[in-house]
Amino acid sequence: MEKIDLEAMGQRAAKVKYELQRLPEKRKNEVLSEAAEQLAADTEIILEENGKDIHRAEENGMHPGMIDRLRLTEGRIAAMAEGLRQIAGLKDPVGEVLETFVRPNGLRIRKTRVPLGVIGIIYESRPNVTADAFGLCFKAGNAVILKGGSDALLSNMAVTASVRKALGHSKVSEDAIQLIESTDREVASRFMRLNQYVDVLIPRGGAGLIRSVVENSTVPVIETGTGNCHIYVDEYADLEKALPIILNAKTQRIGVCNACESLVIHEAVKARFLPELARALQEAKVEMRGDEQVCALVEEAKAATEEDYGTEYLDYVLSMKVVSDLDEAIAHINKYNTKHSEAIITENKENAERFLNEVDAACVYVNASTRFTDGFEFGFGAEIGISTQKLHARGPMGLKELTSYKYRIEGNGQIRH
Amino acid sequence: MEKIDLEAMGQRAAKVKYELQRLPEKRKNEVLSEAAEQLAADTEIILEENGKDIHRAEENGMHPGMIDRLRLTEGRIAAMAEGLRQIAGLKDPVGEVLETFVRPNGLRIRKTRVPLGVIGIIYESRPNVTADAFGLCFKAGNAVILKGGSDALLSNMAVTASVRKALGHSKVSEDAIQLIESTDREVASRFMRLNQYVDVLIPRGGAGLIRSVVENSTVPVIETGTGNCHIYVDEYADLEKALPIILNAKTQRIGVCNACESLVIHEAVKARFLPELARALQEAKVEMRGDEQVCALVEEAKAATEEDYGTEYLDYVLSMKVVSDLDEAIAHINKYNTKHSEAIITENKENAERFLNEVDAACVYVNASTRFTDGFEFGFGAEIGISTQKLHARGPMGLKELTSYKYRIEGNGQIRH
Repeated sequence: MEKIDLEAMGQRAAKVKYELQRLPEKRKNEVLSEAAEQLAADTEIILEENGKDIHRAEENGMHPGMIDRLRLTEGRIAAMAEGLRQIAGLKDPVGEVLETFVRPNGLRIRKTRVPLGVIGIIYESRPNVTADAFGLCFKAGNAVILKGGSDALLSNMAVTASVRKALGHSKVSEDAIQLIESTDREVASRFMRLNQYVDVLIPRGGAGLIRSVVENSTVPVIETGTGNCHIYVDEYADLEKALPIILNAKTQRIGVCNACESLVIHEAVKARFLPELARALQEAKVEMRGDEQVCALVEEAKAATEEDYGTEYLDYVLSMKVVSDLDEAIAHINKYNTKHSEAIITENKENAERFLNEVDAACVYVNASTRFTDGFEFGFGAEIGISTQKLHARGPMGLKELTSYKYRIEGNGQIRH
Repeated sequence: MEKIDLEAMGQRAAKVKYELQRLPEKRKNEVLSEAAEQLAADTEIILEENGKDIHRAEENGMHPGMIDRLRLTEGRIAAMAEGLRQIAGLKDPVGEVLETFVRPNGLRIRKTRVPLGVIGIIYESRPNVTADAFGLCFKAGNAVILKGGSDALLSNMAVTASVRKALGHSKVSEDAIQLIESTDREVASRFMRLNQYVDVLIPRGGAGLIRSVVENSTVPVIETGTGNCHIYVDEYADLEKALPIILNAKTQRIGVCNACESLVIHEAVKARFLPELARALQEAKVEMRGDEQVCALVEEAKAATEEDYGTEYLDYVLSMKVVSDLDEAIAHINKYNTKHSEAIITENKENAERFLNEVDAACVYVNASTRFTDGFEFGFGAEIGISTQKLHARGPMGLKELTSYKYRIEGNGQIRH
């Protein structure tokens, strides 16, 4: 494979960003619809290229779960196309006036939403991210440079080629989407230092990928971190609510970042609640790991280690701890959580308020499942990821989170004294 | 000097941040007033310590301009105290509800402003930053860890000790401000990788410092960059407005990031405008460096090199270029600017609109001096710096820019289907 000229790719992206910033919403929606049609039309070639990726992965002995992530089907390609059509239906965030103020000297200042410019996405082996990430970045007026997992290179190339064809048909520069066609780690490292051209990097994938990007990138990063999410069953909990919420948050989908990984229970309700909860969790095949108080009440529970409290299992496992008051619950959660999603079950307004205020997380819940931390569930209509950092965007990120702002200042000759 | 335990400092900051998040506005304002009084009361000891820093700097042959930055006087300490009192008068941003939405399933979601948590500030030799940065971070509910320039170590220690005394008197944890008492570069490097405890790093200083932080930090950084600011004199400019704006932006204060460094002039007005402008600039002792067309009309102008167009002079020097249309002006500015502040002088609404839309900068002006890019001039009442990146905050940063948000979600038993 020839040497990747990242500099040239950066220059092309930086050039096309000005074109995209000016593109009216109607044109952007046309491109997205065109891309959806093109993906459908190219289904056969995409499946063929994906087949080669799958074949190589199988030869390399890839885990079946990973192969499933890598695999495209007619249905999955149709879903990618449908995703682009849905993005076309979302409101364009660009141009929104966020604030207007007039200064005593007559200067009129308008804080206005603008695209970020060039967004870099580094992701693992799901080829559908290629179309999704393009759609969201493009609708928010950004050029995108993608670096997918090496296992999915041919699939990603096929999807990218299809989208570029659609851009060409729509008379928009094809460089609105560029794929780094390399499986070389050194190229990824250089990509993470392309500050001159790339305004932000968003890693999408497991903890290892995200850590590597945070460690090595000099381009600003939006960290989409892991979720060690807790549910706290308060002294004043309605236990009729607690049980279904816990079961939902733990078992409705185990492999996702907003699933519940740890339970914190007030000692006043432990005797009433734990046996019933344990039966339900056992039925759902959830392994319980608890502290001494839990183990004393739940025969099936294993002893939890310090490490358990800090682990995002993404599995049918739940750590459990009994606390003597709300302070201890909040301190425990703030110590072990990953600032993602945390819930309290309580009918006591004061305790609810304290939990909402004092627990440090992107999303804090009262009497609801942590599984709602999601761009679609929040009504954003889309999601590029869930941020667990505090800069720029926190929690589910939709189109607005893929924008910046600029100050537009109009005067009539003002000078500074 | 003993080894600095950054880990322990981080832990203390992370602990105190929960206390600060809950501190009511009234208490915060009391602390700020108390700190102002304490600084005044400690003037003598601060001046004494500052005198030692000055003495050492003089022995080391430091440039007089740098020594002036380092020097504290009774007046400067009084100004630091007054700065803290002004911050006490600003509205507390914490707790503001930014958005409320109710989902079809009844979940009520409130996007609410919260402190960032722990802010790290890395700065050079102005000891007044110590009090300023504390004041702003504290009012926005954040703990701050400071790393000042080695030349100012004793001054910074004296200011920090004074503020900590005030915190103690006010029964607030003194660790709301911590100073890294080290002149060791290795300690600075470790500070930039303290991701577990520090939510954001803000470098304040010259281009070299900022580049070093961007290059080496794994903690998210808000880049406060340089300003290679342009003024474009359009074909439809009111030249009566253009002249005072250019003089103001170039000469009112030369060493600041929002000063004008480069002029772009439409060829249709060059013959009418350049001779008059040149006279005025000469009178103001501004050296002119222009392209061929400028040099043909202005005898005193030297030939500008490619490097000139990319230089932030911070001096009585101005680069100048003639263009044949607005497109060329915008392309030139987008090529050479540092995304800080750019102005167009025009009476043509369409050209103004295009300039505002298409020039990529934090602040874009019509018929006003670029010198207004400033937190105080914008009415923020304060400024921690001017961001030239697009993530989180762009342009002047006041108290709001030192906050994040969280989603508070209230339900009555909702689970996800």
